[in-house]
Formats: sequence, C-alpha cells, structure tokens
Amino acid sequence: MIVVMDAGATEENVQQVIDKLVLAGFSVHRSTGAVHTVLGGVGPTETIDPAEFEVMEGVKECFRIMSPYKLANRSFRPQGTVVEFANGLRVGGNEIVIMAGPWCVESEEQIERCAEMVARDGAKVLRAGAFTLTSSPYSAPAGVGEDALRMLRKAADRHSLLVISEVMDAAEIALMEPYVDLLQVGARNMENFNLLRALGASKRPVLLKRGIAATVEELLLSAEYILSGGNYNVILCERGIRTFEGYTRHTMDISSIPVVKKLSHLPIIADPSHGTGRRDKVLPMARAAVAAGADGLLVEVHPDPDHALGDGAQSLKPEQFTELMKQLRGIASAVGRTI
Amino acid sequence: MIVVMDAGATEENVQQVIDKLVLAGFSVHRSTGAVHTVLGGVGPTETIDPAEFEVMEGVKECFRIMSPYKLANRSFRPQGTVVEFANGLRVGGNEIVIMAGPWCVESEEQIERCAEMVARDGAKVLRAGAFTLTSSPYSAPAGVGEDALRMLRKAADRHSLLVISEVMDAAEIALMEPYVDLLQVGARNMENFNLLRALGASKRPVLLKRGIAATVEELLLSAEYILSGGNYNVILCERGIRTFEGYTRHTMDISSIPVVKKLSHLPIIADPSHGTGRRDKVLPMARAAVAAGADGLLVEVHPDPDHALGDGAQSLKPEQFTELMKQLRGIASAVGRTI
Amino acid sequence: MIVVMDAGATEENVQQVIDKLVLAGFSVHRSTGAVHTVLGGVGPTETIDPAEFEVMEGVKECFRIMSPYKLANRSFRPQGTVVEFANGLRVGGNEIVIMAGPWCVESEEQIERCAEMVARDGAKVLRAGAFTLTSSPYSAPAGVGEDALRMLRKAADRHSLLVISEVMDAAEIALMEPYVDLLQVGARNMENFNLLRALGASKRPVLLKRGIAATVEELLLSAEYILSGGNYNVILCERGIRTFEGYTRHTMDISSIPVVKKLSHLPIIADPSHGTGRRDKVLPMARAAVAAGADGLLVEVHPDPDHALGDGAQSLKPEQFTELMKQLRGIASAVGRTI
Amino acid sequence: MIVVMDAGATEENVQQVIDKLVLAGFSVHRSTGAVHTVLGGVGPTETIDPAEFEVMEGVKECFRIMSPYKLANRSFRPQGTVVEFANGLRVGGNEIVIMAGPWCVESEEQIERCAEMVARDGAKVLRAGAFTLTSSPYSAPAGVGEDALRMLRKAADRHSLLVISEVMDAAEIALMEPYVDLLQVGARNMENFNLLRALGASKRPVLLKRGIAATVEELLLSAEYILSGGNYNVILCERGIRTFEGYTRHTMDISSIPVVKKLSHLPIIADPSHGTGRRDKVLPMARAAVAAGADGLLVEVHPDPDHALGDGAQSLKPEQFTELMKQLRGIASAVGRTI
Repeated sequence: MIVVMDAGATEENVQQVIDKLVLAGFSVHRSTGAVHTVLGGVGPTETIDPAEFEVMEGVKECFRIMSPYKLANRSFRPQGTVVEFANGLRVGGNEIVIMAGPWCVESEEQIERCAEMVARDGAKVLRAGAFTLTSSPYSAPAGVGEDALRMLRKAADRHSLLVISEVMDAAEIALMEPYVDLLQVGARNMENFNLLRALGASKRPVLLKRGIAATVEELLLSAEYILSGGNYNVILCERGIRTFEGYTRHTMDISSIPVVKKLSHLPIIADPSHGTGRRDKVLPMARAAVAAGADGLLVEVHPDPDHALGDGAQSLKPEQFTELMKQLRGIASAVGRTI
Repeated sequence: MIVVMDAGATEENVQQVIDKLVLAGFSVHRSTGAVHTVLGGVGPTETIDPAEFEVMEGVKECFRIMSPYKLANRSFRPQGTVVEFANGLRVGGNEIVIMAGPWCVESEEQIERCAEMVARDGAKVLRAGAFTLTSSPYSAPAGVGEDALRMLRKAADRHSLLVISEVMDAAEIALMEPYVDLLQVGARNMENFNLLRALGASKRPVLLKRGIAATVEELLLSAEYILSGGNYNVILCERGIRTFEGYTRHTMDISSIPVVKKLSHLPIIADPSHGTGRRDKVLPMARAAVAAGADGLLVEVHPDPDHALGDGAQSLKPEQFTELMKQLRGIASAVGRTI
Repeated sequence: MIVVMDAGATEENVQQVIDKLVLAGFSVHRSTGAVHTVLGGVGPTETIDPAEFEVMEGVKECFRIMSPYKLANRSFRPQGTVVEFANGLRVGGNEIVIMAGPWCVESEEQIERCAEMVARDGAKVLRAGAFTLTSSPYSAPAGVGEDALRMLRKAADRHSLLVISEVMDAAEIALMEPYVDLLQVGARNMENFNLLRALGASKRPVLLKRGIAATVEELLLSAEYILSGGNYNVILCERGIRTFEGYTRHTMDISSIPVVKKLSHLPIIADPSHGTGRRDKVLPMARAAVAAGADGLLVEVHPDPDHALGDGAQSLKPEQFTELMKQLRGIASAVGRTI
Repeated sequence: MIVVMDAGATEENVQQVIDKLVLAGFSVHRSTGAVHTVLGGVGPTETIDPAEFEVMEGVKECFRIMSPYKLANRSFRPQGTVVEFANGLRVGGNEIVIMAGPWCVESEEQIERCAEMVARDGAKVLRAGAFTLTSSPYSAPAGVGEDALRMLRKAADRHSLLVISEVMDAAEIALMEPYVDLLQVGARNMENFNLLRALGASKRPVLLKRGIAATVEELLLSAEYILSGGNYNVILCERGIRTFEGYTRHTMDISSIPVVKKLSHLPIIADPSHGTGRRDKVLPMARAAVAAGADGLLVEVHPDPDHALGDGAQSLKPEQFTELMKQLRGIASAVGRTI
C-alpha cells in the first residue's frame, strides 16, 4: 500500500495516516520528497480499500501494490494451470478445446442431433442450458431441469463428449454434479458470491464467465473466491463487455486474453456467440480469439436456428460450424497449437 | 416491430421475413419505398428479439416499436405510483424521503446510535445490511443474519423509522419479511431473475437498484419481472454506472432520474454513497439528485466511519449528515417539494 | 514515479529499471519488501510515460505520483481562480453566471430577439456560433463568419451582455478577438493541441469543453496547455461523456463538478443542452449542475426552436428559459450563491 | 424516417408531426395500429436529426431508416473498394498490407535503419510522424517538419516502400503531398471537419482512424465527408475505443472489422500499437485483427524502443517484428489471403 500525501499536507495529516496504517496491521516506511510525502505500508493489503485512505485529510492518492488476488495470480503457478478431465481432455495445454451446442435442451431428438453434429466436426464438449431464464418475464422459461440434464448426459456419452451446463443457484449444484463435467457460471452471476463460495467446495471444474461490466481484475477476484474454497480447476471465459458501440450487442475484449495470460495462470476461452449476439460475426471473432491465444471456444450451434427456443440469432447453422472448425484448424496451426 | 430491408434485398428475402413474422403471430403491413422495403408487424413484440430478424438475408435493421415492458410503462399509470407504507409514509408523492444508516449492523449499540442520529435529522427509513458479502474472499463477512435483523427492527421502532435491508437470495425473503419494510435488491442482483420472481410474490415493497452496466430500459424490464408477479410496490434507485472515468468509483447518471420519470410511473430515488464511493462527493451528488427530481435518497451514515466494518470511505460522519439534511431542505423547497 | 517489481523479478531486472530512471533524470530510492521490490523516483515525472516502465522485464506496475499538470493543479492557487471581465462580471466567484443564446447566428433580427430575451431573464453572456460545421457533410454549414460576429457583438452590446462564441481553428482567433469576450473550445477540439497553444497566447479568456471521451485528468491537461502559454483565464465546461446508455445523447457527468473543484482552482460550468441533446432534460440537468456546485451554465435558447437552423431539439423555448431562471434562483440560494 | 407516436398521443399531436415532416420535404404514410400510430416519411433523411421529432408532444420514438451516409455505404459499391497506388500496391484486395515504422522521424540514420528493417521483413509502407504533438505541453514536440518528410521519403524510396504520415491541419496538406503516398488522419482528428473537407479535394489516398469515442456509424460518416469531396481512396483504421477496462490503454474493437465489411465497401486495417499501448500485447492483437479479416496493419517498430523519442512502450523491437511477420503469414494463409 502506498499513500501519497498532498503538497500541502500537514504533519498532523501525515501522522493520522500512519496511525491508521499501523492500526490496520501495516508496518510503515516514510519518505519525504521535495513536494510530496510518500508512505509505504507492508501488511494485509487484500482486505483494505484504498478509498479509505483517499478520503483522509491531506491524502492525494493511494495505491495497492499487491494484487487483491493471490491464488489466481500468475506468480502462484508460473507454469500455468491445465484443467484435466477424467477422459483425459486437458484445457490450458497445447490443444484448443471447442465446446459447442444449443442454447438449451429442447428435446431428446434435438440434443442428440446437436451432439452428433458437433462431435463429428471435432468439438470435445457439449453445451446446453437446463434451467435458463431470459431477461423478459414474458418469455417462456427454457429447459426442463433434471430431465434436460439426463438427456444432455446421454447424448454426450453417445458421442464421447463431455458436458458443460450453466448453474444459476448454489441450490442447483448438487443436482447438476452427477450429469455435468464442467459447471458454467454466467456473466450475470460473476459476482454472485454465495454461488462462487459453493462452487469452491465442488469437485467439478468451473467455467467462470466475465461480467459485461467487469474488469479483468474483478474477474480474477471472482476466480479467487472459487480457488480459495479449494477448487483449483477454474477456466475463465471472455464474452464481451458493454461499451458505447451499439452495433454488436457487446464488444468482445479480445485483448483480455493476452492480459489474463500475463496476470494469471488460469486457462481462458472465449464465447463469440454471446460476445457478438449475431451469427454473422461469430466466425471472424472465433478466429480472432484463437489467434490471440485463447485455450478454447464456447459456441452456440443449432440444427435449425430459425426455430430454436432461444438465442437463435447467435446460433450457427450446422454448415457454418463445419466451416468454422476448418478455419480454426488453420489458425491453430499458425500459432503452434492443435484442435 | 419494423423490419427495414436492404437496398439490394430480393423478393425472396422479403417473403422470408414476412413468413417469419406471420409464424411468430404478427400481422404484417408492407410498404415499398424508392430505396428500402419496410415491413411493419403488429403482434407479440415483447417476446421477440429483433436480432433474430437482423441476421436474416437482406435485412438492414429491425426496430421494436412497443417497449418490451408494459406494467412498468408510464402509460399504464399516467398519474404515477405512490408506494405507501403502514405508518403512512409515501414514496413518490410530494415528500422527498431520506433513507439512511450504516453499511451493516455491527452491534446493538451501533445501530441504536445510527437510528437516533438519522431520525433526529429527519430521515424516515433506517438502512443497514444483515447478510452482506464483499468482493474479496478474504474480507470478513458482514452482518449476523437474523440477530442483526432483530436489532435493526428494534432500533428503528424506538425512533419511529421504517427499515430497509438488502435481500441477496430468494431463500432469505421469508426470514426477512417480518423485520423489514422495504426489501432492497442490490445492483449485482438486478438481473437475478429467480430473486425478482420471488419478490413478485412478496407483500413487501421492493427497492430495485440499477445495475452498473444496465440501461434504463433494462432496469424497467427487471421491474417488470416484479410487477408481473403481482407486486406493484416497486421503487427504483440510481446508484451509478460504469464508465471510463476512474476518479469516482462509478459515474452517477443523474439524467436517468428525469428519463425514468418520462418512461415509467414508478418512483425513483438515488444512492450517492455507492454512486460516488467517496464521502466528499456524497453531498454535492445528493443535492444534484434532489434538484433533478429524485423522490428520495439512500445514504450511508456511520457514527464513526473510520472504524466502520465496511464502506467507511463512503459513509458520512454525523455532522456531515446534519449539514446535508439542511442543504436538501433548501433544494427541495426550490423544486416545490418537502423533506 | 513509483515502480513496483514483480514477485519474481531478478536483480538484473531491478538494475535495468534503476538505470532507466537515472538516465531519465530521476534520483531513485529502493525499498525491498517481503514480496515486492519498490523503486521510488524523484524527477521530471510530467514528461515520462509510466507505460515505458511497465513493459520492462520484471515490472508489475508503475504509478505517477505527481499529477501530469502543474498550473491547473489546485495547489497552484488554493484560493481558486476568478475570471474577471472588463465589465466587472466574474466567473468563479459567488455569482452563478448564465450564458445563453441560439446555436448559431441566423439573422440580425433573430440574434437581437435572442439577446433581448436572455438579458431580460438574467443571463449575462450571449452565446451563438459563427463558423459551425455539423457531423453530416450534407447539412448546410451554419453561421456566416465575420458578419455573424458583427451582428452578435451589436446585439450583445445593446443588452449589456458579453459574447461567447466557438473558435474551431487557430487561424480564426485573430478575426474573433475583436468581437468575442470568451473564446469557446468545443468538445471535439479539446485535444487540438495546435489550437490550445495558440489560445495560450491570446488575451481573451477561454472556455474549454470536456471531450466526450476525456477523463477529468485529460481535461486538466488540456487546460494546462493554455495556462502554460501564459493565459490563466480558463473556464472549464462539463457537457457529457459517452457511455453505453443511449436514451440521452451523452451522459452528463455531474460528479465531475465537485471532482474538478477538488483537483483544480479553475472555475467549471455545465452545458445541459449538449449534455442531454433533448429540451425536456435541460431543466432538471441545469438544476442538478447548479446544485452540485457549478459556477455557471451554457444553455441553448431560441425564439422558435422548431424553425432553428440547428440544434432545435435541444434549444429551450423562451418560456422554458424564463421558468429555468426562476428555478435556478431557488437552487442557487439553497447552496449559498446568487444568480 | 419512422416516427412512432405515444399510446396516448392526440390527433393534434399526430398532425403536428405530419406537418413538420411535410415541411422538411418528406412524403408521409400513416398507419394506425391498435396501440401506436406510426408515421413513415420518405425524403431527405440524411439532413434531419431524429431528436427533433422525439422532443415533440406525443412522440415516443423516431428512427432513421436510411443510413446517414451514402457514398460510404456497401450498397454504393457492393464489390468493395481496392485502393491502388502508383507502384501497384493494392489495399483491400487479397494481399494483407503491413505498414510499419517508428513513431516519428528522429534522424536520417534512424529512419534509414527502420526502412531497411521493415522492408526486409515484408512491410510495404513506411510509417513515421513529422509534425506530432503530445498530450503534455511539457513534452518536446516531435518531428522536424519538411526536413523529416524529406528523410522519410528518401529512406522509403531506397527500400521500395510507400510512405504514410499523419496530417494534423488542413494547412499542412500541400506541404505533405509531394512526400507522402497515404495521408493519415489521427483518431483525435476524426471529426475535424475542416481537415476532412480539405482531404476530399486531395489526390492522395487517406487513412482515416476511428476516434476513441466514435461508433462505426460515425466513422463512416467522417469517411463520407472525404468521399463527398471527390476523393474515393479512403482506408479505415481500427485503433481501440475507450471503455472502463483500464489495463490496456484502449480496448481494440476487433468486431468493428467484420462490421465495417458488412456496412461499407471501404478497406479497413488495424493499429495494434495504439490500440493496446503496450508492446507485449501487439503481437496477439495483430494476429487477431488479421484473423478477423483486416486488410492490413499499422505497426510501430523502432530499432531501439528504449531510446525512442516517443511511444517507446508500444514500439516493437526488431526481432519482435520479424517474429510477428512470420506468425501473420500463417494466419493470412488460414484465411485464404497473402502477405
């Protein structure tokens, strides 16, 4: 923690800051400059809000030196984390892992067709929602709970795929664990701390999506919640942030991929379907994410998007997914990886 | 729903859009212009995503004409909603209602001191958290559950105040209802649709905070979730949005106050404590919100902010709160209202 | 300048940073902590980009301790700047100064009617453009150059008003100085450094508008350009920033008013016309700005906005301006000021 | 132009809107729905501001149907524009064109070393500033005017490169034209309409950078300024927008590349140096831009970035540029293009 005093700060102002730092458990180093007095504090930085010092009389600015996350920090595992599944699939290694499927399970036949289709083109994980709600109270709720999970598992197993599905409430975790290999936390729940704590105690790996208003630091702080509960198998996911540009639903922050790689050891994938909201932008943004270093992709595909129960506008048609996989193989090879 | 076709759209493209509109239950009116063909659809607009049409071949743009919310729309109750409590307090009428108190209940003595202080200066509602979690997994959890609620209620009753407290999970509602007059939904939960649905069935009025990345339309859509469940006593709250300006934690969007007044009949208050994150900005922004037409304020006050368990940097000191109330009375009178 | 080294930085990394700091003219203080080595540099901070250190091997973060602006800093004139005009009008003192008028000079008669109208209601400065261009190449250019300036001056003089008008190019300054009391720099030119340098040499006070993507720090840095040229009579102006909220054209950042008051000694006014883009939002936002501490307002008014040459949607009608001035007097008095 | 009336609009309100549309030169089509009356207007949409209708009594919303740009619209040249230079180089065709060089010309020797280096690795255009100013008034101005242009030209010619350099003022165009093949408009000048008009009359192709707060539509409207002056050789450039994420200086909006490809016929390249501000993010973002469909790149390279006069933090080292070109060749081939 570094506290920079105003040019006009009095000795009393300085002393009050020192007292507050000491009280909070810091040891303080004072350095008096020509213009500013600077106080450096060594101590429990993670639990202190710099704003508490910034509102004190005579304080100009306050910086945190240690990152507020520790277990998610690159320095904790400089070699990088590889999340490994029972069937040997590894996320965060050399292989770029494609997770694909429809917005939600609609029927046994629909999810079987999806599984067949994505497996044939090279995806390794089947995605589909089982409990999803939408932002309009007048839209029909999607998915049919445990029945949907059962169909999802069956379809995935038939095609040797793993299963990823979204968990929206801590109360659903126990129900989902037997059916799901990777528990997905949606962007809206990135700061649902009750849910994150509960996932810290799960044996299942977690896919944590970045909130649309979250900085990379806040994403890592949410990951820290899960890691600090003992669950080290966390995969991050970029899916677009909110900006003033309204042509695309969100703006995919492709640069967050190399930024996460520098700050953290956790794998990061991208979701170009939610990141753009429009089918015709999914292919270029999927290629961009892989070119920038993503460890995988989460893509919405539907055998007949025009009649999908939801997210139809952003779901790829089967032939588009086939084309995408072909393009991605070329990009992966250009960056020294495989699919 | 209005669908504008590309300059180069074929007759087949146009027909496909018409077919999709009809299938979705719309009656369609076609108008062929010099450059663009325009299709107007009358039908179930609320449940349709314009993006579904925008990805179709030959479509330039698609606009929704009806707002996606109905019950929250100004035209539903042009005279405006006044939320009335058992003790006769009215939010949304001529009186500007001040809700104040600490971040969380720390002890019987602390909450009693807060209640005494805010009641003396003219606040009508006591605020404090009972279950709050912070964004760092290493900070101590705050509040002590039902015990905290009991202390809060007792302190409020002693000073004839109502109680507002945050509910973070649908499972907590039943526990809170006996103690709390106004259930607060925090910014992070504005799109927690499970929670919103459950609150639609509650008998208690709800204070719904705007999410930091939510447009005003999305705020009204979240309100619609509660209203459509049968609970019409919803008060909205502006508390800052995320922008590129980093000096304040968030940027309070004061203009959302007159915008909500135009689009909706629901009362709207402002939270300058969370909106700025810094004690020295609370007074000017509180004045600005009232000058712009807010129906009330939610303010953090603490008898000793330097030793508060949380949010100390944004909590007013007692003498600042006294000064604030004095200034607000002048502003209220200038806009023809009372406090 | 403070450079924080990575946890894993080598001694060689540290030495390279020290060498670069010394080369740049800094004297360096090293402090070795349990986890991070921290280097404090005292020297020519304003001319150094922290990013230059952040890309070095082993560096975690780099902070600038001194603000990059000096003359615009509050500590340079703690008592605050009052810009005083020849007729005795003072901006930055106790009086809140209203500047009002049409988007541009349309005719001798129109500007005379505007001057009469705004003077009668209590404005002290007449605003109107003489050279304005719009964002569409197909709109007619507005204003008629020097003739417009002459009409503007004449109308203002007849009603004892001062004149403010926008300068868009350094080449226009000499032409405008004889007619204009306050040279306005538009939001789009906030970082037109050629123009700022030229205004630093002018004898006329300057009104500098915040760019729609500019932080407060960048606004002050642009002011510094003018101040460092010897022109100390600079007034700042908040007029909205670009955010994801699309209902209003921009989002007025009312909190920038108290922020500027803390960081700088320069007066700050607000422009609710450009800040909202819609007539019906001008009154509430004008009141909010004054309640938050603005030293004045810049407002568009037109005798017949429906037939204005431009900005009609955001121009007040005469009776609205009269009502606004009445409301503002009440607010001003509530915050201890006059109009 | 489509104007949607409020549910409660009176017949008089409707008539006033119709009158205003007719007066503005529109022919009007009225359609009365169950809830809303909708007015469709065919006429001079480009010169009308929808906000003018939105502030009228009884109006709910107003949409522009025609894009405000015509010449920049994809439908104007569906086959796409290829900008062709005298030496045969084509931008917008199958070849991805790399433009590289230092921030500014420092000396004859420096620019010669740069030219040699970038030509050897496969760049086709040499970039360097000759007149650049920085955002701090205390930084030394860079470049030495015409002398710099002469050195730049000479170095480029020696290595068969074209020259791109930034023009900051209409007054500089004539001076630059003899030395420069491609005139660059910086992000800060994207809405400097005087400059855009002057470039419309130039014989030189123009590279137009997107402003950090500009939507894609506004970028195309600025291009329209140049096109409407008769200069059809415009290349667009994405270089990052301002968002709440502060880790990178700006957020590169990679999705703008496919969006521009859909909306316009103009070529678009990307500037990962300014887009990220940090050398270590340039490689991944350059790869991402090419993978997403960019027609070229503008990259800062310096033989010795640690001693560059400016932008050192974002300039690649020579060996990094070599590595980048190698990676880009793989990506280009994966998307069916060449470098």
